[in-house]
Amino acid sequence: MARTASLSGFPEWLPEERLVELHVLDTLRRVFELHGFSSIETRAVETVGQLLRKGEIDKEVYGLSRLQEDEGEAKGKADPHALALHFDLTVPFARYVVENAGYLAFPFRRYQIQKVWRGERPQEGRAREFTQADIDVVGDGDLPFRYDVEIALVIAEALSALPIPDFRLRINNRKLAEGFYRGIGLDDTAGVLRSIDKLEKIGPAKVAELLKSELGATDDQAQKALQLAGIRTEDTSFVAQVRALGVSNDLLDEGLSELEQVIDAAVQRAPGKVVADLSIARGLDYYTGTVVETVLVGHEQLGSICSGGRYDALASKGNRKFPGVGLSIGVTRLVSRILSQDLARASRSVPTAVLVALTHDDSWDAAQDVAAQLRSRGIPTEVAAKAEKFGKQIKFADRRGIPFVWFTDDDGTHQVKDIRTGEQVVAAPETWTPPAEDLAVQVSTAAEPAAAAV
Amino acid sequence: MARTASLSGFPEWLPEERLVELHVLDTLRRVFELHGFSSIETRAVETVGQLLRKGEIDKEVYGLSRLQEDEGEAKGKADPHALALHFDLTVPFARYVVENAGYLAFPFRRYQIQKVWRGERPQEGRAREFTQADIDVVGDGDLPFRYDVEIALVIAEALSALPIPDFRLRINNRKLAEGFYRGIGLDDTAGVLRSIDKLEKIGPAKVAELLKSELGATDDQAQKALQLAGIRTEDTSFVAQVRALGVSNDLLDEGLSELEQVIDAAVQRAPGKVVADLSIARGLDYYTGTVVETVLVGHEQLGSICSGGRYDALASKGNRKFPGVGLSIGVTRLVSRILSQDLARASRSVPTAVLVALTHDDSWDAAQDVAAQLRSRGIPTEVAAKAEKFGKQIKFADRRGIPFVWFTDDDGTHQVKDIRTGEQVVAAPETWTPPAEDLAVQVSTAAEPAAAAV
Repeated sequence: MARTASLSGFPEWLPEERLVELHVLDTLRRVFELHGFSSIETRAVETVGQLLRKGEIDKEVYGLSRLQEDEGEAKGKADPHALALHFDLTVPFARYVVENAGYLAFPFRRYQIQKVWRGERPQEGRAREFTQADIDVVGDGDLPFRYDVEIALVIAEALSALPIPDFRLRINNRKLAEGFYRGIGLDDTAGVLRSIDKLEKIGPAKVAELLKSELGATDDQAQKALQLAGIRTEDTSFVAQVRALGVSNDLLDEGLSELEQVIDAAVQRAPGKVVADLSIARGLDYYTGTVVETVLVGHEQLGSICSGGRYDALASKGNRKFPGVGLSIGVTRLVSRILSQDLARASRSVPTAVLVALTHDDSWDAAQDVAAQLRSRGIPTEVAAKAEKFGKQIKFADRRGIPFVWFTDDDGTHQVKDIRTGEQVVAAPETWTPPAEDLAVQVSTAAEPAAAAV
Repeated sequence: MARTASLSGFPEWLPEERLVELHVLDTLRRVFELHGFSSIETRAVETVGQLLRKGEIDKEVYGLSRLQEDEGEAKGKADPHALALHFDLTVPFARYVVENAGYLAFPFRRYQIQKVWRGERPQEGRAREFTQADIDVVGDGDLPFRYDVEIALVIAEALSALPIPDFRLRINNRKLAEGFYRGIGLDDTAGVLRSIDKLEKIGPAKVAELLKSELGATDDQAQKALQLAGIRTEDTSFVAQVRALGVSNDLLDEGLSELEQVIDAAVQRAPGKVVADLSIARGLDYYTGTVVETVLVGHEQLGSICSGGRYDALASKGNRKFPGVGLSIGVTRLVSRILSQDLARASRSVPTAVLVALTHDDSWDAAQDVAAQLRSRGIPTEVAAKAEKFGKQIKFADRRGIPFVWFTDDDGTHQVKDIRTGEQVVAAPETWTPPAEDLAVQVSTAAEPAAAAV
């Protein structure tokens, strides 16, 4: 199944692969709805002005133009009214909330599962078209911090329900980091975050150099910032470790308390799934408190499979602010990995559980009656199109993984054959039902390949 | 709910409207899977060369370019390798079939529910971004005609399951029409079809003029062509009516026999839902046999809500041909109409069935335990974020249509209140279950407005 997309960066799945993706999407939807999140979709396009509203973005954006448009009509890249494809679901959601504020009940909790596009260089885990599954809660004016805790728990539950390897949510808090930097006298906190964000790529020595050369940090300041970023605990002991660094600042205290609440709840409700990781920075983005990245254990080089955090200032309407907190699962990144490493598989390639065979070409109508009776009881059923030899009709089912073939004799006797075992029994179309595990396609985890230790 | 899209032609739904759309999508998926159709998705973009492969198209196509691309990199409109958004799902599906022929089992039956884009002038029933739900069956080399019959029946069943007014599939056959035109000596059959396609817009007198002025038809030829287009029957009596016109031609015979098979099966299996309508032409498209359009009774001016047909030559790979037959439902057109005329409504605006109230701020953790128990039995549940007065917490539920609020006393007694009736009962989180009709959101048909007679 090692096919290459015919257009680099635009993956397409075969039907049996799509069944794995559908299983992932259905599972996420089920968990999100169990937690009361409402589905919405936003249009695929935004105005360029909207996409660039928060200033420079590091995402490659696809602009749109009508092929048949008149020359004079063509809009320049700089035109803020020109249309472009969205590169995430958070910016469009913020726009949607502001536009529809009068129709929504706040705090508003929604999930959104859609494709997004980025014109970046494709590589494993990075496509140009990919599906994201987001949950967010947005408040009107304020939003209790408890939603930060809840969002992390919902995502841990959702990821646990997927056929994927073990994962870790790595959580930090911008207030904690920024308060700490201020406490040691580094006031360009955005600059420090940008440098710390490079830690995994370039290592601590080079980050220290950057802090000194670009931000004028002293040796001691650089070392303190690196010590903070080195803290990683599976429980709330990070608090004592930060305190031991001897820095005091009000914002730091607030951030410590917030992160402690998240980790404390996670230790109880999602044990082993969440770590406090004080190196997490989340680059340029609009986050103001909690920040999250997620790795698959043993697949760390794939990058984060679920990211997000708290944003207090992304959406506003005049004086009215809509603070939010949300996380975004990279569905295509996960599904690509599941498929390329054969981590899960569909039990058959089609929804069909029963093929109704044709004895004669003119028995199609009677076969449709049988099929209609089976379908009325929820059994996915196809009817053969031609009265080929039974061997050929059975092969038709076998190639697709359809487990049962139905035969109707000339005397009206019905029989159904399990083509995997060869067992054939007399059956009535009004009552016969396949075993539950054969009714719908099952997606099951294959034996997991040896994963690296945590 | 008469909101206007903030970008003309790009509709977005409120959460309670989206629930109606989800109901439509889930219903279509269920029916398609019951009939053994496999889900696939294709990428949103095709190359311009692929989209224009069949020559001129009358759809307005959106081209793509990277906003950050270098000047020299910019591709002209004429570049066949430039990318553009797909304008339907049939052309991408044909490309997918050819590319993946070695991995698919033929006849291959798939459904595909995705957004498509056309840069046309928006009006009621015509958006620039809209969702289509397609089913097709494609063969390798040949495809039994029976699939034409089956596709029509599946679509009639799918549409019957939706919360929409009564509908009619209007079915014709290109072979029938082309054979007839040849039989009366009009050999530019594409030209005749183009003129006949304008019948509803400009009327028979002007179509007759067109046939004479543009195609050199005689009075008698024009009248015969119009007589054919005037035939519309709810059963197979159209055969006798065509025969009575005294035209003989082999292709005509083949088309008559094909259409007769479709109508014959529909009279039995989808009574009242299908008519033979010999005026249906389907414009410029790639159809070679069966052609279908569908109207909502009483909403004819909305245009076709489901169209398609047989295409024998859309997909090929060298000498290998992949004939297909398929139909496409205009989901956004249907949902827009359902919403604008209030034809169906969701029973509440959120998935949540139960809100767990907080007695004290520190009872959040115990409330999460209750919620987890309810969710583990499939009951969508939210937990309040703050221990506000019970009246305020009840109002939170009421605004969203959440039917039940759960209270836990300090002594650990649980009670659940139906906030619609005020009834409150002692309940256990391990066993209490809401009535089936309250468990999940229900979408039900509102009283139908007076519809025009057929």
